[in-house]
Amino acid sequence: MRCLLFFILSFPLLVSAQLNKDSLMIKKISYEIMTNGRAYDLLRELTKNIGGRLAGSPEQHNAAIWGKINMEAFQPDKVFFQPCKTPNWKRGGKDYAAIVGINGKATNKKLEVMALGNSLSSKGLMEAEVIVVSDFNELEARKNEVKGKIVYFHSILHPSIIETGKAYEDAYIYRSDGPSRAAKYGAIGVMIHSLSTAPDNEPQTGVMEYNDSFPKIPAIALGPTDAKNLFEQAKKSMLRVQMETFGYFLPDADENNVVAELTGSEFPNEIITIGGHLDSWDVNEGAHDDGTGVVHTMEVLRAFKSLNYHPKRTIRFVLFANEENGGMGGLKYAELAKLNKEKHILALESDDGGFTPRAIGIGCTAAQLKKFQTWTPLLKPYGTEVIAGGGGADISPLSKDFKNIIQTSLLVDSQRYFDLHHAKTDVFENVNKRELHLGAVNIAAFIYLVDQYGVNF
Amino acid sequence: MRCLLFFILSFPLLVSAQLNKDSLMIKKISYEIMTNGRAYDLLRELTKNIGGRLAGSPEQHNAAIWGKINMEAFQPDKVFFQPCKTPNWKRGGKDYAAIVGINGKATNKKLEVMALGNSLSSKGLMEAEVIVVSDFNELEARKNEVKGKIVYFHSILHPSIIETGKAYEDAYIYRSDGPSRAAKYGAIGVMIHSLSTAPDNEPQTGVMEYNDSFPKIPAIALGPTDAKNLFEQAKKSMLRVQMETFGYFLPDADENNVVAELTGSEFPNEIITIGGHLDSWDVNEGAHDDGTGVVHTMEVLRAFKSLNYHPKRTIRFVLFANEENGGMGGLKYAELAKLNKEKHILALESDDGGFTPRAIGIGCTAAQLKKFQTWTPLLKPYGTEVIAGGGGADISPLSKDFKNIIQTSLLVDSQRYFDLHHAKTDVFENVNKRELHLGAVNIAAFIYLVDQYGVNF
Repeated sequence: MRCLLFFILSFPLLVSAQLNKDSLMIKKISYEIMTNGRAYDLLRELTKNIGGRLAGSPEQHNAAIWGKINMEAFQPDKVFFQPCKTPNWKRGGKDYAAIVGINGKATNKKLEVMALGNSLSSKGLMEAEVIVVSDFNELEARKNEVKGKIVYFHSILHPSIIETGKAYEDAYIYRSDGPSRAAKYGAIGVMIHSLSTAPDNEPQTGVMEYNDSFPKIPAIALGPTDAKNLFEQAKKSMLRVQMETFGYFLPDADENNVVAELTGSEFPNEIITIGGHLDSWDVNEGAHDDGTGVVHTMEVLRAFKSLNYHPKRTIRFVLFANEENGGMGGLKYAELAKLNKEKHILALESDDGGFTPRAIGIGCTAAQLKKFQTWTPLLKPYGTEVIAGGGGADISPLSKDFKNIIQTSLLVDSQRYFDLHHAKTDVFENVNKRELHLGAVNIAAFIYLVDQYGVNF
Repeated sequence: MRCLLFFILSFPLLVSAQLNKDSLMIKKISYEIMTNGRAYDLLRELTKNIGGRLAGSPEQHNAAIWGKINMEAFQPDKVFFQPCKTPNWKRGGKDYAAIVGINGKATNKKLEVMALGNSLSSKGLMEAEVIVVSDFNELEARKNEVKGKIVYFHSILHPSIIETGKAYEDAYIYRSDGPSRAAKYGAIGVMIHSLSTAPDNEPQTGVMEYNDSFPKIPAIALGPTDAKNLFEQAKKSMLRVQMETFGYFLPDADENNVVAELTGSEFPNEIITIGGHLDSWDVNEGAHDDGTGVVHTMEVLRAFKSLNYHPKRTIRFVLFANEENGGMGGLKYAELAKLNKEKHILALESDDGGFTPRAIGIGCTAAQLKKFQTWTPLLKPYGTEVIAGGGGADISPLSKDFKNIIQTSLLVDSQRYFDLHHAKTDVFENVNKRELHLGAVNIAAFIYLVDQYGVNF
């Protein structure tokens, strides 16, 4: 590129002095974060010095201490732990699978695999014929063929779906429910296509949920290339496969939500929550999932303190202990909020990765949304607009007891997320500093507006 | 991420059957490109099998042949070369610089550097005191101190500027004009901060333009970390530096624009041009700059042919021979268009990298823009909107003789581009398949609409 081409974001004339004051404050926030932001350096520490942080692991324990020490250094009004119990699943070994027979002839084609989270041990190497199905309809139609076999679900994320989160939603049920659905008809193991958009062969783990009514059979995800090859090959040939997994559960672990607070000067009892989850899967550094949400949260606190901003309302910055396999962090936060008779007005979650921010998604009535959308001109210069649809796994339990709480989330460009989600490629090197910091800018700007005007303006 | 959050792109109700027909066609285009697209594979060939493609290099020659063969395989109505002369600059060796003295005390701190494009040889190792200036104002104020020294310009891309193209525009003049501006006052060499946003130490080359009135002194770009350190150190201490460059020019080279054409069935004399440039700098694979523009162009042709789309107007798919150091490809294309008395109605350039598309930028009157913006609802599901401001170096020469031609460009997310622009990190691995293909979808959709309705609808 030599000649200059760039995307001019229009900034409609602001109509009041109030809006001018806000646009100036948001400009200050943006300057502070884009120029002096520490999110990227904090993420390097979390991913490189601590690493993957499955609930129950020493790394997860260290991450909570790291989060507390670092948030204390920013000098908020309070920093505290919220102890909570979490599941304590262990992978237990190096998951293995291979094609060992084609039409009765021996072969040995090793497959790239990862056991799904919660998958139990295969108790040794298992071997069986594989039955390949495209979806649950095909499973039902062929249920009489399943007994004693290993079922493969072709759970691709269809590339034609522009928003990858939608494609993930479509395929998710094969990972979560596939194993028990197959076990119901006598399958002894399950393989799935990793819920991946990547043009590579990296398998992706992720939570699976056994149905207690059926045998708890081992389940693994195949790398995308291996999965597609197996799918095509099985159309023409009878394949035998071997697989071995080692998963088991220890007694529930003692973990901690880490909570920092800026106490409101005018309406201290109106609580706004921002958060991401500290835990990750064991197979990577948990960079985009959800290290970026963690450091977004910490960076907003840092920026507010650095700008000497004293909020009217109380703002909580929460690093949730456990989302991936149990969601116990969010449940504990909501439980204590109820116990302490708190008043929660809005919560925002960042758990879609640290990519370029595109929108603040808001779950509320159409009338409320319209009001929030008057803030779009203030956010647009930084890349986002206010749209319908927000929330997240960590903050959703708050809605049970706080009926009027508004659930929001940072929505980001979705094209790259499922290339590395739950794969070993979710590492620091795949996070871009500017994209990450721009996410923090937009969260801080939106939370500043919520603090100034509340949710019933 | 466990719970589903995604960005719902709203698709306003289309008001006419015509729009419904168009939305169906665009959906087909998108499905074809996202599911069967070849842009990513073509880019792998161009970057990995051919490599960097500076005008005058064997690689550039090979790239044109590769482009012709591949476009012929898609069976357009015509494929042809447009021979053109291009500059033929050679780097000539391994550029070198080091800090060798601090306050008169010898040291040896090697710096990461790249000579700027067009920089001539230093004719051996040169050594001098460095004078550090923030901008041209400071250079003018201190012009009497410059003689016999090496001038360093602190040409950072300010991180607070959200659109990185704007930051690049601000800093560009130090790379293009800095050397001659310093030579005017007797400087013997120039160093600049690479025009980079990256949190790394990779230097970035790029075109520099000597003013023939002043001595043609050698000029290099420093890696960002080394540049910032030198800037800080020079505030406190007197630094001596060494530098050596090897650049020279061979006689102009014979290169080729590669042009494919789908001839219009109703208005064959109304020409629409899409293009990107084949050449790149010598230091990388020219993946985002501008391999992605090349394969965008080829993919749109492939998709139209694959969908059996017969355009009403003539569509030209142009791989320009030379943009980086001379822009001779675009000049030749415009010269032949005039010579052949063609009628050009619109041109689109893709040269901002293969990142997630954000907009189709259009350079036209406000009244025309308003009409084009009626297409935004058709493009929005694929991530773009129609906004003001488009064009590019390769297509701009067309405006000289075709006063009414509409200049447009694909505008993409700008956060990552200047991390790798003209650096050795601009390689295939840093291009994302979905982002790349989504760019082709939006170009194809927009060009389809231009073909259907022309530019005066």
